[in-house]
Amino acid sequence: MSLPRGFPVAEYRERVARAQGAMAKAGLAALLLTTEPEVRYFSGYLTRFWESPTRPWFLVVPAAGDPVAVIPSIGAALMAITWVRDIRTWRAPDYDDDGVSLLAATLREIAGGGRIGLPMGHESHLRMPLADWARLQGEGLDFAPDNGLMRGLRAVKSEAEIAKVREICAIAGRAFARVPEIARAGVPLDEVFRRFQMLGLEEGADWVPYVAGASAAGGYADVISPAGPEPLARGDVLMLDTGMMRDGYFCDFDRNFTLGPAAPELRAAHARLIDATDAAAEIARPGTTAAELFHAMDRLLTGGKGSDAGRLGHGLGMQLTEGLSLIPQDHTVLEPGMVLTLEPGIEVAPGRILVHEEDIVIRNGAPEFLSPRYGREMVELEG
Amino acid sequence: MSLPRGFPVAEYRERVARAQGAMAKAGLAALLLTTEPEVRYFSGYLTRFWESPTRPWFLVVPAAGDPVAVIPSIGAALMAITWVRDIRTWRAPDYDDDGVSLLAATLREIAGGGRIGLPMGHESHLRMPLADWARLQGEGLDFAPDNGLMRGLRAVKSEAEIAKVREICAIAGRAFARVPEIARAGVPLDEVFRRFQMLGLEEGADWVPYVAGASAAGGYADVISPAGPEPLARGDVLMLDTGMMRDGYFCDFDRNFTLGPAAPELRAAHARLIDATDAAAEIARPGTTAAELFHAMDRLLTGGKGSDAGRLGHGLGMQLTEGLSLIPQDHTVLEPGMVLTLEPGIEVAPGRILVHEEDIVIRNGAPEFLSPRYGREMVELEG
Repeated sequence: MSLPRGFPVAEYRERVARAQGAMAKAGLAALLLTTEPEVRYFSGYLTRFWESPTRPWFLVVPAAGDPVAVIPSIGAALMAITWVRDIRTWRAPDYDDDGVSLLAATLREIAGGGRIGLPMGHESHLRMPLADWARLQGEGLDFAPDNGLMRGLRAVKSEAEIAKVREICAIAGRAFARVPEIARAGVPLDEVFRRFQMLGLEEGADWVPYVAGASAAGGYADVISPAGPEPLARGDVLMLDTGMMRDGYFCDFDRNFTLGPAAPELRAAHARLIDATDAAAEIARPGTTAAELFHAMDRLLTGGKGSDAGRLGHGLGMQLTEGLSLIPQDHTVLEPGMVLTLEPGIEVAPGRILVHEEDIVIRNGAPEFLSPRYGREMVELEG
Repeated sequence: MSLPRGFPVAEYRERVARAQGAMAKAGLAALLLTTEPEVRYFSGYLTRFWESPTRPWFLVVPAAGDPVAVIPSIGAALMAITWVRDIRTWRAPDYDDDGVSLLAATLREIAGGGRIGLPMGHESHLRMPLADWARLQGEGLDFAPDNGLMRGLRAVKSEAEIAKVREICAIAGRAFARVPEIARAGVPLDEVFRRFQMLGLEEGADWVPYVAGASAAGGYADVISPAGPEPLARGDVLMLDTGMMRDGYFCDFDRNFTLGPAAPELRAAHARLIDATDAAAEIARPGTTAAELFHAMDRLLTGGKGSDAGRLGHGLGMQLTEGLSLIPQDHTVLEPGMVLTLEPGIEVAPGRILVHEEDIVIRNGAPEFLSPRYGREMVELEG
C-alpha cells in the first residue's frame, strides 16, 4: 500500500511559517532560493526537468504571506498545480535577460528596501549564472547570507517527510533482498548495477539517481565508483550503495555481499561495522551531537585514532546527502525528526576498505531505523 | 556489441590543446572549473557521486601542460585511474576551509598573476558556496569570465563523443520500440514510467536521469511533469521523453503514442511535427544558424507567428541540454560535429500541446540522425 503523493497544503504553510519565524529573528525581508530542493521545499514543485541546466528558477519567500515563483514559462502549468498562486514567468532561454529584471522587480516589490537572505554557506550553491548574479547585485537590492537558516529548517523533518523516507527505504530494502537473483560469480559488475536499478524500480522507486559500489577481493578502493564490465569473482566482496527516490525523498544505504564464503578477516571487519552502527544508534538521541556519533563509531573502527574515511554519516532527505556530517568538527545537537545515515568505514588492508550504511530518524528515546537493519554476517552470493 | 568505456588519453589531450589555444587568444593563464561536465570534459572523471551536493570539486586547466585536480580525498582513488596525474586533495567536508586555501595556492602557482577564466554566462553555474567564492576572490587572484570558451569547446563533438551519443540513442530507441509491452489502457502512468526506465536499463543504459511525459486526451499541458497514478485511457496521447545515459553521454528524444485510434486532428498535428522535423533537417548543415532551424520549423507549426513553446531544440551531449538553443535570438552557426535535438511543439487546443523530438549531428552535407526516426503516424497502443 503506497503513500499518497505530495503533501497537504498545511505542510507547506507550516514550513513557510517556520521560515518566516526564523527570518524575523534574522531581520530578513525575503529569502531568495534557486536550487531544486529549496524551491521544492516551500512549493512542492517536483520535476526531473532540473536535469537540464539551461534555465534558472527562482522562489521568493516573503517575510509574511505566501511564496512567489519567478520561473520560465515552460514550468507554469506544473507550478500551477502546486499551492503557489503568485507565478511570474518569462520565456526562457532569453539571452538578453534570462529572468533577471523580472526577479529584481519581484524582490524590490516583496523586500522593499529590506535584506534578502540567500543560502551561501557550506553545501549551498547559487543556481544561476555568475554574470546574472552580478547584474542582480547591481539592482540596488540588499543581499545577505541566510546564516544557515535553510539548512536548519530542512534538518528537522515532519512526520509526513519521515514517512516518505521510510517508504523509499523499504523499497530499496526489498531490492537489496533480491540481489541474490541478479549477482553471482561471472556476472559483469555493470550488469549487476543495471539489474539492481531495475529491481528498485520494480519494487516502487520512481527513479534511481544514485548507485555506486564495487566488487573486489579483500575490500574495495572507494565507494563512489561507477561499474565497469569486470565480472564478479569468487572471494569478492560486492558492495552496492544506492540513493533511490520516491515522491521526492531519498534513501541512502548500502549492503555488502560475499561471493562464496568470506575470508575470516573480512567477516570480522564487517561485524565490526555493524557493531559501530549499533554503538552510534545506542547514543543517537536528542541532545547528542553529530561529533559524538562520529567518536562512538570511530572508537570501534580505529581505536579512536580518527577515521581516514572522512565522515561516518550525514543528513538525508530531499537530497542524497544534506545538512550535518558525522565528523569531529560538527557539533550539531540532534533533535527529534532529524534523519541521518550511519556510515562506518574500516580499512581492511592498505587502500582497501569496507563501508556499511543505515538510515535512522532521531526520536525521543531510541532512534527508529528507517532502513531494514543488516546483520553482522554478509549475505553470501553464489561464488 | 557495445563500445569500449571511456576515451583514449589522446582525446583528452586534444580537448586540452583546443582549450589552451582558445585560452591563449583570450589571454587566460588558467581556467577554473567546478561542475560535473566541465571537470569530466578534461579529466574523464565519471561518477554519480555528484548527486551529493556536499563537497566542491575543482579542476584547473593551465595555459600549458596538463590539468590539475583539486578535490576531496574521497575522490582520489577514482581520479587516479584517469589520465590526470596532479591530484591535490583535502579531507572534505571541512567547515573551516573546504578546499579554498588549497585551491587558491594551486591557482596562484599555475596562473602566476595571470587571469583565471570561469564560465559565467548563460547556462553556467559556479558549484561552490557563495561564501567560499567570496573568500577566494579575496585571495588576490584575477578572475574573469571565460566569454563562452567552454561552451564553444563542448559544442563541437569528436567522432568518439558522437559514437557515444549514437549508442545511447540506439538503446533508448530499442526501449521506445518495446513500449507496447508496458503501456495500454488501464495501466497507471507512474507504472509506465517505471517500466520504461527498466526497459532502458535492460537495453543497456547505465542509468536513466530523465523521464518526463504525460497521457491525456487531446494533447497534454506540458512536457516536464512527473507521473501520477492516473491510468492511461482510450483516446489518450501518451508522450514519453527521456534522457538516458551510457558512459557519460545523453540521448534526449521523445515519442508519442495513441491509446486506440487517434482522432483525426491529433494525427494531423503529429504528422505536422514530423514534417517540421524534416524541414529543419533539410537545412541543418554547416553554415546554417540555430535561428534558421527555428524558423524552418516554426513556419510549419504556427505559420511563422512564433512558437509559444519556447525553444524548438537544443544542444546535447554530456548534459541533457547544453549549448545552443533553437530560438530566434540564437545566431550560432552550425559546424560539423555539433549534436542537437530538433524538438517541434504544436498547440492542438488551448493549453494542449504535442511535442516531438529527434537527435541529429551536423555533417558536411545532410545531418546524421542519431535517434531512429519516427514516422508521421503515431504507434497505436492497446486502447
